[in-house]
Amino acid sequence: MNTFTIWTNATFPPAAMEVVKQGTAPHNLIQSTKPAANILNAGEADPALSQADIAFGQPDPQQVIDSPKIKWVHLTTAGYTRYDTPEFRSAMKARNTAVTNSSSVFSEPCAQHLLAMIMAQARQLPQAYRTHDWPTDALRSQSQLLEGQSALIYGYGSIAKRLAELLAPLKMNLTGVRRTVRGDETIPTVTLSAAESLLRTADHVIDILPASEETKLFFNADRLTRLKRSAVFYNIGRGWTVNQTILQTMLETHQIAAAYLDVTLLEPLPTDSVLWRLHNCFITPHTAGGHATEFVRSARHFLDNLNRYTAGQQLTDRII
Amino acid sequence: MNTFTIWTNATFPPAAMEVVKQGTAPHNLIQSTKPAANILNAGEADPALSQADIAFGQPDPQQVIDSPKIKWVHLTTAGYTRYDTPEFRSAMKARNTAVTNSSSVFSEPCAQHLLAMIMAQARQLPQAYRTHDWPTDALRSQSQLLEGQSALIYGYGSIAKRLAELLAPLKMNLTGVRRTVRGDETIPTVTLSAAESLLRTADHVIDILPASEETKLFFNADRLTRLKRSAVFYNIGRGWTVNQTILQTMLETHQIAAAYLDVTLLEPLPTDSVLWRLHNCFITPHTAGGHATEFVRSARHFLDNLNRYTAGQQLTDRII
Repeated sequence: MNTFTIWTNATFPPAAMEVVKQGTAPHNLIQSTKPAANILNAGEADPALSQADIAFGQPDPQQVIDSPKIKWVHLTTAGYTRYDTPEFRSAMKARNTAVTNSSSVFSEPCAQHLLAMIMAQARQLPQAYRTHDWPTDALRSQSQLLEGQSALIYGYGSIAKRLAELLAPLKMNLTGVRRTVRGDETIPTVTLSAAESLLRTADHVIDILPASEETKLFFNADRLTRLKRSAVFYNIGRGWTVNQTILQTMLETHQIAAAYLDVTLLEPLPTDSVLWRLHNCFITPHTAGGHATEFVRSARHFLDNLNRYTAGQQLTDRII
Repeated sequence: MNTFTIWTNATFPPAAMEVVKQGTAPHNLIQSTKPAANILNAGEADPALSQADIAFGQPDPQQVIDSPKIKWVHLTTAGYTRYDTPEFRSAMKARNTAVTNSSSVFSEPCAQHLLAMIMAQARQLPQAYRTHDWPTDALRSQSQLLEGQSALIYGYGSIAKRLAELLAPLKMNLTGVRRTVRGDETIPTVTLSAAESLLRTADHVIDILPASEETKLFFNADRLTRLKRSAVFYNIGRGWTVNQTILQTMLETHQIAAAYLDVTLLEPLPTDSVLWRLHNCFITPHTAGGHATEFVRSARHFLDNLNRYTAGQQLTDRII
């Protein structure tokens, strides 16, 4: 077996890091001491990265471009906005460097999170939980059976595919929406432009769009104001795909029934945001992909891919 | 076609009552003016009932026994505790009077309600919704993937059967529990005594038990204290199947993780009940069977059965 130099700046708890260490024992593991980029921090370049064959974590994109030795980059996230540039893509393709992400780790909890949101609204759970009163008749009459209701799912990918499986027994009418319809989707799927007219009749509008220049403020005034008054809007994609000011106004004036948001424009959502106070807006703090075993599953996902890499097999979750 | 005298004390909103009136137009419909029994009221006998061939609603059980002309009783509820007595059963059987309930109307929303509760806990939705803080890491680490988790479902019937369908894509280990195992259950099902040892390992304990002498305080100290600390208890059956004082203590002392209750011993749950204040107890006010279209669906369910009755076909949801 080949021995590789694996650089990582993954910030896992000790138990998950132990899984990484044991699984990479035949190789040379370099743990970076430099902070990775996050929502508050641009990160720091790490000179050690240039010696690596494999980069695991959140390496600086420019440094990856400048490190020709790197033949495989495995990201610990599902999102990869920083790497989704023409420059990065062409540099990786030119030297045949593979890039994989961790979407398999997060698609299951994300799909379950959406199912939880849809069911919570249908059964009026959060509306019940915020009162110590006993408004049986009001809540019963606001509860909805889901059979026959329509849902538009923006961003058909592994999360949407899994969500469709979870929703199948509820017999809703699901429509996927994606930039390019490939024909291998598991539910009827349309292009972004074909979906425009469907916004007027959708009971549920589900946003799983990634962050990119193309999706910036995608749900703008024009699209949001097409929604019907009984529609419910869900977002587990990225906050910047939505004009949050317009959404807030629509919720305040009851032009839509409710919003379930796991992501917001700024995170954490500022404590003085009106969204916190709206009785029809339900916010989870970017927890959709989370689960008790996420770091161990993330470590195992990398090690599975490392086995494939050393065996010359096709990598899982390859994005470039 | 035979013409029947149909007595009803169903208290439907006008639109649903209109459905009943139109659907029973060929027959003689008598609308009772006497209040039916409810949680606060023992009800009143209605002399008009004795002239009926068919009783639809919540007729007084003793008066049904005393009215030999009645050949079919259709109840507007799924629960039928007042009618589930040896005296009532034998009187109906002796004169070949059929008794049907409305379980078909309520099994779908009840199963969806349980799915909503299970998903809410797995994704920590109510825990997130009660804070305006942004505890991402804490909530993510408390979120659970459901695959492989075990659920014990007490009261295998139409709700449990439907719940099993809704949960199927989540790949949990479901076990039904019922008084008599018939062999036609859709999930592995055991008797009450065989379930005793399973309480120690169950991740989810789901109570759909009806109210009867046999189920009174079924979840007593002995059974509840077998649950593991990470277990979650759900009740959409009847409040009196649970020793609420013991349950409260177990929640206060974190001997179980959480409880999701749609029913309580007294309803409405008194405003000074400690359960309202516990951070791991989530209460809906007896809304599990409710849905926006419940009265119209209930009316149609009766009319479907009326068609079967006049055609001499087997009735749906027959309980006696």
